[in-house]
Amino acid sequence: MLESIKADTSENAGDYEVRNVLAERYASPCMKEIWSPRSRVLMEREFWIAVLKAQKELGVQVEPGAIEAYERVKADIDLKSIEDRERQLLHDVKSRIEEFNELAGYEEIHKGLTSRDLTENIEQLQILRSLEHIRIKAIAALLQLSKRADQYKQFVITGRTHNSPAQATTLGKRIVMIGEELLHGLERLDHLINHFSVRGIKGAVGTQLDLLTLFSDDTSKVAALERKILEYLGVTKMCHAVGQIYPRSYDFEVISVLYLLSCPASNFATTLRLMAGHELASEGFGASQVGSSAMPHKMNCRTSERINGINNLLQGYVAASASVAGGQWNEGDVSCSVVRRVFLPDTFFAIDGLFEAFLTVVDQLQIFAARINHEKDEVMPFLVTSTILMEAVKSGAGRETAHNAIREHAISVKNELRTGKIEKNDLLQRLAGDDRIHLTREQLEFILSNGGRLTGSAGAQVDWFVRQSLGWASRFPQATQMRPGKLL
Amino acid sequence: MLESIKADTSENAGDYEVRNVLAERYASPCMKEIWSPRSRVLMEREFWIAVLKAQKELGVQVEPGAIEAYERVKADIDLKSIEDRERQLLHDVKSRIEEFNELAGYEEIHKGLTSRDLTENIEQLQILRSLEHIRIKAIAALLQLSKRADQYKQFVITGRTHNSPAQATTLGKRIVMIGEELLHGLERLDHLINHFSVRGIKGAVGTQLDLLTLFSDDTSKVAALERKILEYLGVTKMCHAVGQIYPRSYDFEVISVLYLLSCPASNFATTLRLMAGHELASEGFGASQVGSSAMPHKMNCRTSERINGINNLLQGYVAASASVAGGQWNEGDVSCSVVRRVFLPDTFFAIDGLFEAFLTVVDQLQIFAARINHEKDEVMPFLVTSTILMEAVKSGAGRETAHNAIREHAISVKNELRTGKIEKNDLLQRLAGDDRIHLTREQLEFILSNGGRLTGSAGAQVDWFVRQSLGWASRFPQATQMRPGKLL
Amino acid sequence: MLESIKADTSENAGDYEVRNVLAERYASPCMKEIWSPRSRVLMEREFWIAVLKAQKELGVQVEPGAIEAYERVKADIDLKSIEDRERQLLHDVKSRIEEFNELAGYEEIHKGLTSRDLTENIEQLQILRSLEHIRIKAIAALLQLSKRADQYKQFVITGRTHNSPAQATTLGKRIVMIGEELLHGLERLDHLINHFSVRGIKGAVGTQLDLLTLFSDDTSKVAALERKILEYLGVTKMCHAVGQIYPRSYDFEVISVLYLLSCPASNFATTLRLMAGHELASEGFGASQVGSSAMPHKMNCRTSERINGINNLLQGYVAASASVAGGQWNEGDVSCSVVRRVFLPDTFFAIDGLFEAFLTVVDQLQIFAARINHEKDEVMPFLVTSTILMEAVKSGAGRETAHNAIREHAISVKNELRTGKIEKNDLLQRLAGDDRIHLTREQLEFILSNGGRLTGSAGAQVDWFVRQSLGWASRFPQATQMRPGKLL
Amino acid sequence: MLESIKADTSENAGDYEVRNVLAERYASPCMKEIWSPRSRVLMEREFWIAVLKAQKELGVQVEPGAIEAYERVKADIDLKSIEDRERQLLHDVKSRIEEFNELAGYEEIHKGLTSRDLTENIEQLQILRSLEHIRIKAIAALLQLSKRADQYKQFVITGRTHNSPAQATTLGKRIVMIGEELLHGLERLDHLINHFSVRGIKGAVGTQLDLLTLFSDDTSKVAALERKILEYLGVTKMCHAVGQIYPRSYDFEVISVLYLLSCPASNFATTLRLMAGHELASEGFGASQVGSSAMPHKMNCRTSERINGINNLLQGYVAASASVAGGQWNEGDVSCSVVRRVFLPDTFFAIDGLFEAFLTVVDQLQIFAARINHEKDEVMPFLVTSTILMEAVKSGAGRETAHNAIREHAISVKNELRTGKIEKNDLLQRLAGDDRIHLTREQLEFILSNGGRLTGSAGAQVDWFVRQSLGWASRFPQATQMRPGKLL
Repeated sequence: MLESIKADTSENAGDYEVRNVLAERYASPCMKEIWSPRSRVLMEREFWIAVLKAQKELGVQVEPGAIEAYERVKADIDLKSIEDRERQLLHDVKSRIEEFNELAGYEEIHKGLTSRDLTENIEQLQILRSLEHIRIKAIAALLQLSKRADQYKQFVITGRTHNSPAQATTLGKRIVMIGEELLHGLERLDHLINHFSVRGIKGAVGTQLDLLTLFSDDTSKVAALERKILEYLGVTKMCHAVGQIYPRSYDFEVISVLYLLSCPASNFATTLRLMAGHELASEGFGASQVGSSAMPHKMNCRTSERINGINNLLQGYVAASASVAGGQWNEGDVSCSVVRRVFLPDTFFAIDGLFEAFLTVVDQLQIFAARINHEKDEVMPFLVTSTILMEAVKSGAGRETAHNAIREHAISVKNELRTGKIEKNDLLQRLAGDDRIHLTREQLEFILSNGGRLTGSAGAQVDWFVRQSLGWASRFPQATQMRPGKLL
Repeated sequence: MLESIKADTSENAGDYEVRNVLAERYASPCMKEIWSPRSRVLMEREFWIAVLKAQKELGVQVEPGAIEAYERVKADIDLKSIEDRERQLLHDVKSRIEEFNELAGYEEIHKGLTSRDLTENIEQLQILRSLEHIRIKAIAALLQLSKRADQYKQFVITGRTHNSPAQATTLGKRIVMIGEELLHGLERLDHLINHFSVRGIKGAVGTQLDLLTLFSDDTSKVAALERKILEYLGVTKMCHAVGQIYPRSYDFEVISVLYLLSCPASNFATTLRLMAGHELASEGFGASQVGSSAMPHKMNCRTSERINGINNLLQGYVAASASVAGGQWNEGDVSCSVVRRVFLPDTFFAIDGLFEAFLTVVDQLQIFAARINHEKDEVMPFLVTSTILMEAVKSGAGRETAHNAIREHAISVKNELRTGKIEKNDLLQRLAGDDRIHLTREQLEFILSNGGRLTGSAGAQVDWFVRQSLGWASRFPQATQMRPGKLL
Repeated sequence: MLESIKADTSENAGDYEVRNVLAERYASPCMKEIWSPRSRVLMEREFWIAVLKAQKELGVQVEPGAIEAYERVKADIDLKSIEDRERQLLHDVKSRIEEFNELAGYEEIHKGLTSRDLTENIEQLQILRSLEHIRIKAIAALLQLSKRADQYKQFVITGRTHNSPAQATTLGKRIVMIGEELLHGLERLDHLINHFSVRGIKGAVGTQLDLLTLFSDDTSKVAALERKILEYLGVTKMCHAVGQIYPRSYDFEVISVLYLLSCPASNFATTLRLMAGHELASEGFGASQVGSSAMPHKMNCRTSERINGINNLLQGYVAASASVAGGQWNEGDVSCSVVRRVFLPDTFFAIDGLFEAFLTVVDQLQIFAARINHEKDEVMPFLVTSTILMEAVKSGAGRETAHNAIREHAISVKNELRTGKIEKNDLLQRLAGDDRIHLTREQLEFILSNGGRLTGSAGAQVDWFVRQSLGWASRFPQATQMRPGKLL
Repeated sequence: MLESIKADTSENAGDYEVRNVLAERYASPCMKEIWSPRSRVLMEREFWIAVLKAQKELGVQVEPGAIEAYERVKADIDLKSIEDRERQLLHDVKSRIEEFNELAGYEEIHKGLTSRDLTENIEQLQILRSLEHIRIKAIAALLQLSKRADQYKQFVITGRTHNSPAQATTLGKRIVMIGEELLHGLERLDHLINHFSVRGIKGAVGTQLDLLTLFSDDTSKVAALERKILEYLGVTKMCHAVGQIYPRSYDFEVISVLYLLSCPASNFATTLRLMAGHELASEGFGASQVGSSAMPHKMNCRTSERINGINNLLQGYVAASASVAGGQWNEGDVSCSVVRRVFLPDTFFAIDGLFEAFLTVVDQLQIFAARINHEKDEVMPFLVTSTILMEAVKSGAGRETAHNAIREHAISVKNELRTGKIEKNDLLQRLAGDDRIHLTREQLEFILSNGGRLTGSAGAQVDWFVRQSLGWASRFPQATQMRPGKLL
């Protein structure tokens, strides 16, 4: 019997640390920094000091030396001590106030504030910084897709719909199909960032009562304080009429925009896994990498699978954030507290990890031209049936009549190939003999021989996409330097 | 034993029609029209005719009389006949092509098109028209909230956080708290509409191959055709590089924006149900309305509950739309077909029904001033504790020291009131005797007597919101005429 | 500009009927019957009559002729008239009471009942009958899988993990992998049915007060009444201590079990779509079927895609049902009303449609042996690497040392094949020369030549599954007769 | 400008640890132990040793001293070293194999196994142990509810539906309403545990090929090995025909049963928050607890809100687990890997935290009798309207006629009370004068005076529930000792 887990429900279990797996395995250091408890405490302390300075400038009495004292100790962060306080007070912000006060030796911070005046703004700042980080990553992904699309702009592949060969396309075009979706998500993200509002300092039920009391009902001073804090936070917009909390639908909006951004990567990963299954492409494979502990030959698309998995996981955070968005009681309740403590950081760790993976996969993408050409040659007579249909129509055939004729022959050929009755695709010969088609054998053969060039607007679309990507890169040049870390 | 349902799995069950309950019970006639199968067929036929006309103008050979023939029969819509065809062909669009051709006596439509060139654009048009309809409703809701907020701008109520009395606020401010959230959702909706792109005519794998073949590779003619069709549809933006389908993350975006819009209504409904539970307010009650078949006295918040319910239901459509957004295979697969057939219309019926309910509830809202005042008087000594704290701080008390002193007394009073040990709230007397507070009895009594006016920026926030609402109404004046239908 | 949709928000839109698309396109007649409004009204009337008869038997005064009058008119169902009443009363059950009373000319029904005494029991009966119907369908699916598994018990295919060739398996084994998952879901469904409890007649807040009043506090009569009604409904279990409503987590349980059942079908459909993409298999294709309106050669897996799509859609209903399960207020609120009106029937229509599709696909499955064998031969040297590893270990090699040696060679071979550097897989030659492997060339060649038989326990697993399926069929023999309808 | 977060996308961010917030703030030590990385490594090593011993017993050659060497080093767990290996190999299991081998100085473990033979069984064991732990907690909750229900069995309160006063009930009955739902969830959990199957040792594609090779195709030895391992794990059931992985719908089942269990607690918490809002009850409040950093008087239901929040969060994990349940490719893919790494532990931490909170709240529940009685007296004339209706019916009134008469009067009274037109509820006087009611003033007054006893079967339901709870406690006596930890 297994010794290591007794789980006998006695609570004498030892001290086993559990780290956040999304932060530790997938996210980048930058995202971890934004959401680490240590950073959070530091941000809050700097916020309190900023408020205190602004209050002093606006005439509130502050004990001499207090601001300097708070400044001096702000980086002395002892998470354990704060937690011990919280176990007494059962109030997280009050614990952090008392810790900071005791370190500084003053009771000057948090005047005129309620807990949410602190926490909502800080959390929104974490969100905003994270969104900005993701924006750079998304643009970096655009640039990589753009490079790949340009590289394979002319490279013809078998386009597939319903997973079955449809028409010819180019690999470049397949990539910009993903690219346009990413562009769309990026525009939404950019709009979100540009219109992002923090809650501001609104007090316990949103009326700013305590600040007004502090400033003896001088509304201009309260307005000035809010302006200073906004400037300090580096944001430009603020809520006007919220209650205790900003509406949780704003969080849902953030999560849903991040979900939007995950979809093109996930579509790309799915298609790459399909291609890899038939050795048309690979996501790359490290020199010392192992694919399977049982089967030494395996080279799996583990990173592409990870992208799909993160997309699935994000669906969970979309659901969790939706579930707290429309059920607020009165001026605010905190039944969303535990939910937001989880979904906010975890969504950002996840999407950050997704882009780390996506950037890596696009960078290390391998294309196996010989296999792709072999596949394309095999199915070419099918890839041109719509062209035959159009030429037949131009030659006077009724569209549906010709469609039906081609359909009959094509399906016969396909069935005979599948069952081994024939070995070679002789669709053209059959069509040549059917006068519903209105085309000669020569015309048909010309179409087939030209089949590898039938990629329509594919090239022009690649050019369009490259231009779009460069436009974004010129707005955010730091994206050109963004490189994913080494994946775990 | 119940006779009516045998459900013995024999399939001899009769012909039982099932209508869409969201369309029939909750949505408005306008939304039903947009999504009815009959409208859909008509839209498609008009689309085909528009393409045909444009093709003719651009030089494609079209049989004389064909356009007129299609025009003549376009309104002859026999859904049963189309369904019978589909049972043979197992392809929905092909059935509709053949029906229309047979009615007209020509085979001229759908040249150079694939099914998705038709269906994606039409569905996006249904979406766009629906979004525009919801925009008007959302603005109408803004205006109603604005009217109510102004009416109750000065009316003081007990502000509650965590469902417990916190500080005074005004009913007008409580309403604009909802209003600002709705404003936020509306801005996102407006942005979505203004940036809405239809797929355009891109062909089977997105390369426009068949149209190019039809126009003998004249790319300018293909571009001209797309422009004409865009104009005809009345939209300004188009996708550039999609495959067979537009990315399904675009659908998720639509649903998520609609979900955003449902949240303020749902928050309002929740708070109204809380208020109604203690006879502070009511959503109104019809003269012939029945609240319960058992208890004749019941007057339930059924419409507010409906709003909450629709918000919950929409969470389901958010999940369904998310689940098909990031799993596309290659140039496109149609594993999303059944999902979109359901979630697109049903989400619009649901959000439309939510606004019908919301507009009704805000319009018929009843406020019971005597009850509200009674509640407020009872808890007033608690509502002013933060003001006492601020005044104490201004008088030189340490913030946390004073907080603790007030906390001790307030909790004692509360506990004694709860258990019936005292009958009257004597918090002020107790505070007056505690020198940690630094305030005299007179000062404390002044604060209490002034308590009913301690609503800070509430009035200014109402004014701000009224201005915003009027701004939207002047952009969309038809919103001022929007009235909900009579609810079922 | 498109004429057909004005959507100008004027509400003069005409009368456009919208039917339930899941019921109309996908569900079977039996499921439609259970959930049709007409059936619902009839079930309710029969329930009222049953209660009335039981009350009379237990001594409640009932006007002579009343029961007969109700019986006589119970099938006169005028949905329009009921709806008109509801528009006045704004209470659905009260409308149906008054309609039935007026038809019969008596006021005898619904005594001692609250609305939920009627509606909860009827809805649970609809659920139970639907579950029983799905149970038969699931068993029918087991039998079909069993037949197919037996047919392909020995047929060797390329087993794939991470979509890349792994080891040999048999098609029969691949099918029973799905089959075991279905068996698991079926067992849960069966358990759910066997433990299904209806709410019973519990009154407005769950205390049975009004029935007790009616029976002058004779608890034995109330118990007798409930027993009679239970018997009448044909169920064996009842809730004991519910409030106004049965807990909505019970609905979530139903939906989640149905979701469980959809997953094996969806896994099967996914794998079939993968196989079809490379012409290894097909879901079948009708003689008159059309695959694409643009590309006449297309033969798409539309039904398999439908299965995946329904699985996705069900995720939405899982979310919607979850969202109303844990938020009940006091003895009950009806914020779940609109949600349940939608997700209960729609989930059943969807899962029913999924099984219609699944039964069809398994029945019409086509397997292309030549293509499968070709694929298998190509990758055989890779499929046997784990066997080589085990034989090496048995010959004394260190497991990880040998693993690493094989890995190095296999990856080189794979890379050279992909890039066209070699044409033939010469892995064995390379391994034979590496003394870390401990195997001679003869031993290696024996393994390779035997590769097509390396399917381990596959056959025994098929036999096991066939036995399980037959066991279920003997418990529910009607499943052997269940056939899907012709799909739309 | 805030210094603490630069988020300049440069990746030079320092080393910021992020711990799992659910594990750290909410879960119990026992649950943390089960899911800690350290425990996981130890469990895996013990599993490998168990397999190795069994292989040796069944005749596989194992180097002398190897087993002892592995035993000796199994607790030398260096997570950092394992992680460093994984960065090279990009394969988690292979890293752990090599680490363990190097520590022991042998290459004997993992023979005949694929990674999933290890990881799936270990994860399922973690799940099973966690489920067993939750079962004890759920029974402990039953016992607490049972104690409370018994305590308040006769205590009459205002029953509410749609949040408005409906009929009288008892607090005991209100509690057992929750209790029955919990009982239902517990039965499902118990069934899940009793039927829980681990994957067993099935090899890379589920055929047990490598084990069979190792045992030279001796199927009885493979069967014996699996039996030994099952026994060792302490489980009784095993999958038969899975592929590389067990079906992910099994995970969804686990999560959905846990969600079921969270709902009664969440319903209870919601109702408690409603009661607390009007000082009818409280969840308790610690001596040193702080309710608000701004408003010293606040005593919030933070723990009840936490329960609701965890219920919401679990909806996210339901969605995430559903999203990977029906999309498996072939014999298995690992696109679920990242998803399961998160939702498995996090769901268990969350549900564990929910029960910690629920046990605490029920234990510390405070009931304020005076407030409850005051509320009840105020609404009593309404609470008895259905009793009046029943007595009227018994006296010969038509049910709907009487219903309508009472309705008219009750609504008038309610409206006059709300608007302050009357101060005292005079419903009885009004009814006495209406001959549609068929009751004298004396009869009506008797009903009203008796109103506080009109709680029907409430007491009997409490007795039933207490019996059920004791039954569970006698099956699992350790539940009587289960106490929640001190909450953070």
